[in-house]
Amino acid sequence: MSADTVISLNLATTRPQWGFAEAVEGCLKAGITAISPWRDQIEAIGLDEAARIVKENKIRVTGVCRGGMFPGVDAADRQKRIDDNLRAIDEAAALNADCLVLVVGGLPGSSKDLPGAREQVTDGIAAMLPHANASGVKIAIEPLHPMYAADRACVNTTDQALDICEKLGETVGVALDVYHIWWDPNLANAIARAGRMKRIFAHHICDWLVPTKDMLLDRGMMGDGVIDLKAIRKMIEDAGFHGPQEVEIFSQDNWWKRPGDEVLQVIKERVATVC
Amino acid sequence: MSADTVISLNLATTRPQWGFAEAVEGCLKAGITAISPWRDQIEAIGLDEAARIVKENKIRVTGVCRGGMFPGVDAADRQKRIDDNLRAIDEAAALNADCLVLVVGGLPGSSKDLPGAREQVTDGIAAMLPHANASGVKIAIEPLHPMYAADRACVNTTDQALDICEKLGETVGVALDVYHIWWDPNLANAIARAGRMKRIFAHHICDWLVPTKDMLLDRGMMGDGVIDLKAIRKMIEDAGFHGPQEVEIFSQDNWWKRPGDEVLQVIKERVATVC
Repeated sequence: MSADTVISLNLATTRPQWGFAEAVEGCLKAGITAISPWRDQIEAIGLDEAARIVKENKIRVTGVCRGGMFPGVDAADRQKRIDDNLRAIDEAAALNADCLVLVVGGLPGSSKDLPGAREQVTDGIAAMLPHANASGVKIAIEPLHPMYAADRACVNTTDQALDICEKLGETVGVALDVYHIWWDPNLANAIARAGRMKRIFAHHICDWLVPTKDMLLDRGMMGDGVIDLKAIRKMIEDAGFHGPQEVEIFSQDNWWKRPGDEVLQVIKERVATVC
Repeated sequence: MSADTVISLNLATTRPQWGFAEAVEGCLKAGITAISPWRDQIEAIGLDEAARIVKENKIRVTGVCRGGMFPGVDAADRQKRIDDNLRAIDEAAALNADCLVLVVGGLPGSSKDLPGAREQVTDGIAAMLPHANASGVKIAIEPLHPMYAADRACVNTTDQALDICEKLGETVGVALDVYHIWWDPNLANAIARAGRMKRIFAHHICDWLVPTKDMLLDRGMMGDGVIDLKAIRKMIEDAGFHGPQEVEIFSQDNWWKRPGDEVLQVIKERVATVC
């Protein structure tokens, strides 16, 4: 592994095996010094203790997962969701995270109004932005694969996310996860555009398996699927982003069933060879 | 149901229940006078007999499913695939079909070269086009949902399909299936563009279920999911296409288990109310 292939472990990758503290211990043992935790994992150990572990071990936090989920059924519901995002900002700030990652949310209630949901997303980010900026926390919109448009995120392409970023200013960028964007016929142009805008805040990797048995929890280890990881990495690095590659694998039938140490070893081998 | 809500039955919708002849009989009984058969269904009854049934009953064939699957592992493989498309053209011509629908194919063999696969698709359509034009058969590229990019179709947005159409001439257009395109943030613009190009050759409907339990065989009946069918229909009609709405539902756990006559009755009710 060369010096410029720094790995961050998204802690969803070892969710069933390890809590926050165990994951940091496992990472350090494997020579991995960056993580991206989920909010429930932070909550389980407590924010203060999480921050202490991060600081004491000089861990880089490449992101906090996740804010977002803005669309609501009414004004009160939407405000509740914005309030939760304000708390997420505080957590990202306490961990000195590179960004707060947003999974923006899908259609609220029984709505079929996708353009309306997308407006609610832009409005929601705008509402949280003053607190984010005051806290020094960057916001990373993660465009999600179109198969999640209804229930998880109505922002589904890099260009669509960048259009929102342009409206909201330089502290709102994108988290580019190969799993969500690899299929995009306009991918090269969109990543170059993100680079010109200086809005690439994170780079997530895993792989797309064929067949994919579960739409959420059957992501592949890098090299086991069809994504041209080196090509996308080159696009992202040519666009000026040289941060860690953050490994985020939801895998209920495979990697979640193996010992965490083994998973990290395979990740290191694959990042060194196929990423 | 008003006069302008003409239904076509894509025969995949009643695949386990009915063969070609039974499906036509079921349609006529239900007052449906347009169909879109699959090639294996045509082959099972024989092309001559299928053509006789169509002609005798004055059935409109809104499409033949399907040509495509162009990307191959080598030149011989690609030629074999083109030859199969030439036969598909003959079948579409014999049935006087509105178009031959293309599911263009995904990554060949163990390739991860998506741009390369996309080039093979354009080249493959170009190779079949002289025979299609000589036979009076229009070619409809069906952009498929991005979740099928690896294994079924590397053309995944309406705009991407239209870019190919522009290269190949006015007899190559698009089949717009709401299941594949509903999530597209640029959908309204893309459909308007297709209209200006006069390239909308088919309009397929079903619905996107939440949750979707199977990536291929869990499509919903119109009204049971989240797609704003009326909004998309308006876009397509405003773009100048007023052909039948072709109902194409792959549903292994629900509609494929019900009597064909019942399925057609529900389709008629839903088209009259939610489409």
